Amino acid sequence: MQLNTIQTDSLFNGKLKILQDKSKFCYGIDAVLLADFARPSLKTTTYDLGTGNGIIPLIMSFKNPGCKFTGIEIQEECVELAREAVKENSMENSIQIIQQDIKGIPDSLPANSSKAVVSNPPYMSGQLDVLQQDATAIQIARHEILCSLDDVCHAASHLLNSSGSFYMIHRPQRLSEIFLCLAKYKLEPKRMRLVLPAQDSEPTMVMIESVKCGKPGLKIEKPLVVYQRPDEYTDEVKRIYGRG
Amino acid sequence: MQLNTIQTDSLFNGKLKILQDKSKFCYGIDAVLLADFARPSLKTTTYDLGTGNGIIPLIMSFKNPGCKFTGIEIQEECVELAREAVKENSMENSIQIIQQDIKGIPDSLPANSSKAVVSNPPYMSGQLDVLQQDATAIQIARHEILCSLDDVCHAASHLLNSSGSFYMIHRPQRLSEIFLCLAKYKLEPKRMRLVLPAQDSEPTMVMIESVKCGKPGLKIEKPLVVYQRPDEYTDEVKRIYGRG
Repeated sequence: MQLNTIQTDSLFNGKLKILQDKSKFCYGIDAVLLADFARPSLKTTTYDLGTGNGIIPLIMSFKNPGCKFTGIEIQEECVELAREAVKENSMENSIQIIQQDIKGIPDSLPANSSKAVVSNPPYMSGQLDVLQQDATAIQIARHEILCSLDDVCHAASHLLNSSGSFYMIHRPQRLSEIFLCLAKYKLEPKRMRLVLPAQDSEPTMVMIESVKCGKPGLKIEKPLVVYQRPDEYTDEVKRIYGRG
Repeated sequence: MQLNTIQTDSLFNGKLKILQDKSKFCYGIDAVLLADFARPSLKTTTYDLGTGNGIIPLIMSFKNPGCKFTGIEIQEECVELAREAVKENSMENSIQIIQQDIKGIPDSLPANSSKAVVSNPPYMSGQLDVLQQDATAIQIARHEILCSLDDVCHAASHLLNSSGSFYMIHRPQRLSEIFLCLAKYKLEPKRMRLVLPAQDSEPTMVMIESVKCGKPGLKIEKPLVVYQRPDEYTDEVKRIYGRG
């Protein structure tokens, strides 16, 4: 691994270390919000589909001691960064990082085995005008080059046992498509929260918890507002970042 | 018509009269918000499915002079009230009220003929434990006794021409089911707005514009907040009620 562009950031007053390759894709607030929205299980491992540098299992493990996480990532550089961060935070007993194509999950990982799956998948639909082998890490993280929304929902549904929860953050623009795709894989939306940059803004993200084989009935929570002033997070987001 | 429980209310500084039977179902803020969210066409008649006392075409006609509306309602007492209100407001040239079962629309009204359909349908799913002939007007307006969400979407899709818009207000709890039902009838959600009773509340209603044979891509607007203080509407709702 080339370490010259790798930087160590920290979260939660320096208690959690995150490794990032600044020349490639860096985590955003979406991963931090989703890691707070999701509820891991104490009984089974929680999977993170497309874990990147491991940001989601790292935060969830920090906030939920005693829970086990498996981060799945196809890109080798990301897998290495994530494993490095797991070591730096001495979380080897709670987080495992597997290099694996999400599309291959239904054929390679055990079915109906987990109570919780998380994913912050690529937001942009369709194929970029690049060959798969030429795509950059940033393009892979943002565009559905290596896996589609359908692949992510299929993998989540495969891993979850009945009544297990799938937590996803995505773009509001794709909400209808998301609901259709969840329904295709028997994932029933049960809880949803829009994320607004400011009180009076349109939402830029949506978080959805769907339950495998769940009964119909969606609870839409009050919107999550990120900034109370242009340079100051709301109290809720400060709490999520451990600065409350 | 028994007129003893009929009351005349007015909206827009007394400029629009609404007749209501206080012993039966009265219109709520949902109809007023939907009538503002929807955009009628100048070229074709705008249908309101389940028009009740005609509140939606009355408000839309008041706000959009020159547009034509057809309110469809199965309950005779409501049809009479709505027609009476149309006369009281001298809107006979712009509003027509038809007594018709929504389920019968695909067999009786012209297909692909309208650019806009509106509906504030019954919110509660499933059958009440009453026989259809014993159901009260309130139960019929609130519960899917005489028509289901599927019937409403089917009728809307039948009436709309390609690229025509269907505007609906409904409960957030049923959003997933709504999206599946819209998709079944080739109605693509394009614009959505949650209604929050107060800034820091969960949404109690959702308004959706879907376009027949539209391309995917949903715009979620900033939430519509109803009250700024417990007894005072926000400026936006004041404007919607013509008190701005």
